[in-house]
Amino acid sequence: MTQNAPAEPAALKVAVLGAGTVGTEVLRLLSQQGTELTQRIGAPLEVIGVAVRDADRDRGEHVPAELLTTDATALVREADLVVELMGGIEPARSLLLEAMAQGASVVTANKALLAQEGAALYEAADVHGVDLYFEAAVAGAIPLVRPVRESLAGDRIQRVLGIVNGTTNFILDAMSRTGASFEDALATAQELGYAEADPTADVEGHDAAAKASILASLAFHSRVRLADVHCEGITQVRAQDIAAAARMGRTIKLLSIVERIPGEAGERISARVYPALIPQNHPLASVSEAYNAVFIEADAAGSLMFYGQGAGGSPTASAVLGDLVSAARARVFGGVGPRESRYAELGLIPLDELRSAFYISLTVQDRPGVLAEIATTLSGHGISISTIHQELLEEGEAISADGDHDPRGGGDLPQAHIGITTHRALESAMTASLDVFSATSTVLAIDSVLRIEGE
Amino acid sequence: MTQNAPAEPAALKVAVLGAGTVGTEVLRLLSQQGTELTQRIGAPLEVIGVAVRDADRDRGEHVPAELLTTDATALVREADLVVELMGGIEPARSLLLEAMAQGASVVTANKALLAQEGAALYEAADVHGVDLYFEAAVAGAIPLVRPVRESLAGDRIQRVLGIVNGTTNFILDAMSRTGASFEDALATAQELGYAEADPTADVEGHDAAAKASILASLAFHSRVRLADVHCEGITQVRAQDIAAAARMGRTIKLLSIVERIPGEAGERISARVYPALIPQNHPLASVSEAYNAVFIEADAAGSLMFYGQGAGGSPTASAVLGDLVSAARARVFGGVGPRESRYAELGLIPLDELRSAFYISLTVQDRPGVLAEIATTLSGHGISISTIHQELLEEGEAISADGDHDPRGGGDLPQAHIGITTHRALESAMTASLDVFSATSTVLAIDSVLRIEGE
Repeated sequence: MTQNAPAEPAALKVAVLGAGTVGTEVLRLLSQQGTELTQRIGAPLEVIGVAVRDADRDRGEHVPAELLTTDATALVREADLVVELMGGIEPARSLLLEAMAQGASVVTANKALLAQEGAALYEAADVHGVDLYFEAAVAGAIPLVRPVRESLAGDRIQRVLGIVNGTTNFILDAMSRTGASFEDALATAQELGYAEADPTADVEGHDAAAKASILASLAFHSRVRLADVHCEGITQVRAQDIAAAARMGRTIKLLSIVERIPGEAGERISARVYPALIPQNHPLASVSEAYNAVFIEADAAGSLMFYGQGAGGSPTASAVLGDLVSAARARVFGGVGPRESRYAELGLIPLDELRSAFYISLTVQDRPGVLAEIATTLSGHGISISTIHQELLEEGEAISADGDHDPRGGGDLPQAHIGITTHRALESAMTASLDVFSATSTVLAIDSVLRIEGE
Repeated sequence: MTQNAPAEPAALKVAVLGAGTVGTEVLRLLSQQGTELTQRIGAPLEVIGVAVRDADRDRGEHVPAELLTTDATALVREADLVVELMGGIEPARSLLLEAMAQGASVVTANKALLAQEGAALYEAADVHGVDLYFEAAVAGAIPLVRPVRESLAGDRIQRVLGIVNGTTNFILDAMSRTGASFEDALATAQELGYAEADPTADVEGHDAAAKASILASLAFHSRVRLADVHCEGITQVRAQDIAAAARMGRTIKLLSIVERIPGEAGERISARVYPALIPQNHPLASVSEAYNAVFIEADAAGSLMFYGQGAGGSPTASAVLGDLVSAARARVFGGVGPRESRYAELGLIPLDELRSAFYISLTVQDRPGVLAEIATTLSGHGISISTIHQELLEEGEAISADGDHDPRGGGDLPQAHIGITTHRALESAMTASLDVFSATSTVLAIDSVLRIEGE
């Protein structure tokens, strides 16, 4: 016992909002580990209620009926600590703001809410002198928020490269292992429960973009909103792209990238999500199935990587409980957790001004002079070619990538597929080059445009 | 600004003990990042002195002469925060105890001190209501202590497998890549600055054992002293063992292993360090050069891995600064960091009672019946064989592993090398079997005994 702890501390009142998979698991662990948690916190935790939309329907196995309530607002007003596991923007946002205004510290796993309303939440925590913890919102069980906010608080993070969406990693890994198409790998992921019936939020990169916005805010002490994140999903990634990447010693991963970009007008931030080719010996390349991993480059610490399960009831509950212990200890011993409301407010750099290395795959007319024409277009835009490969034309494949016959009528002409990798070039230069390719009869189709990272 | 922060907080007085590589880098970062640190802490840090043994000799580039003092005791009595980077037991121990008794919070990177005197230090922090942080003591820049103490505070860690010594990982990685002997790889490591002139603490596993004792204490909330850790180094690992492991799809790493072992008499702890064969697809297998990585298995979180630089001035300074920010924030806003003095006091399980899978390499007489004799000995001790390989006898190699001619005079007899892997068996059963092999004329030499982990 430290000097400032009371001899017999009163129980801390915990309100749980939501009784889905994660909420149920949190309640189970709270009950199972009660004694140990009391020791670590210095006071017992008492769950005073579990808010659900429908008390009959939303009751998990470990949720005692007498704790259920549909009046979440009344519940948070009674609580010292509020655990929000409802998801979505409202009523989660109003309930958390209400809880903090009443002096409760809050723990949330709600990435969408943080990505959209993070600034308001951080501000409320600061104004009311309470804690806001959200370890589970970025990479599930992987301790990532705490290391970034605390362990690296005396360092300077330059860049974060993360695989933070398990569904898309499962799909890309399956495509890579089996040669399956995106559609087939998605179907497998859905069968195995790794993808939802409506997979949009995952496969279009929205989930990864929400996490990128949270990561960027933490890493650079700046406001980065979901709308600030450039986002491309994996629906356009073809089995042929993965095969071509493998022939070049690379693999394709959906990356959330946030980094500082120095420039004449000072430092700016880039936050973006897209599928990218990375070298097979990069630590992120071996992240398989639905695992997540985040690679951080900091000035003093150098390269760090964190790896684990990014989703699921138990892993997410583990992260929530770690946060709950921290918030509860501050109730017993005083003190406040890290604060995010003092912003450096670095500006955002538009994607167009970034420099990236590219892999592009084109279907072209198979006649002399075509390669020279393409190379001239690229070099005319200041893009330097690294490699060119003639790619294999599969039998009966004289159609464009989306399964339609080529709209520019190349069907009867001899065709070739070529894969080009470039050195780093301005995004705007690549956009302009692709515009030229779209307008020329030489290029029958632009099958893929992917960036190369991690080299 | 939160409600309980003073409007213009006074500077926090920081004493730095030691001005070696890490101390110098800490001072450089404190000066370079002053403004940002003040923002994050809520008050400025003021370095009031740097204690060295010899003020003329021990001055790094970034250490102002007027800050140097040889009176460390007087210095710590003035400080709010003490950063101990001297290493060794004394005077570090007395100075930290004095600092805490005077009400200062302390940050240390001193693994030897924590491994030997951790209980006394944790106790002192608790009694005096101050903070004791030591992120840099276990795995350098890798945020590991904070995740284990805080992020996983609501979970239950079952097992930690760590590569926590960069020197030995560099040597084993070099042996694996080039086929070099231990001696040659050590010489290379020394040339490149990865190993010290006297490499004993690293290659004999003492450094890894100190870190294992700290990890076990944190992971299981129990007192585990350095002397409680079973420790074997890598000096006996032969190039042939690494080649044999590779043929079996495995690689050899020096592992620090701490785990809970259930049993009839209740749960006990094992803490041990030894070189072991792990599968090439295990996340720890790809940790190359001097990098460190720690793999954690927890009930709810599942498998987690943390990877980064485990040593070096900058990475260690990054971890020290992260701790300093946490300790300093508690000075400004109140509160105390995690506590380690409430122990579960799980007992330790002796190595003999553990069950391990083994790889053993024997030089035997090359005559009929020898394999049967060996298999009978093993099965007589309850050890089940998984695989047996006849290993390659290199030209002119009719000598035992240590370079001496075989003492039991097998020189003129036809010899064979055999490699055996076993299923999990009691350590005491393997010891007894090896005693039989030592006493029989059939086995000319026991060349290697290594454990297999991570399967």
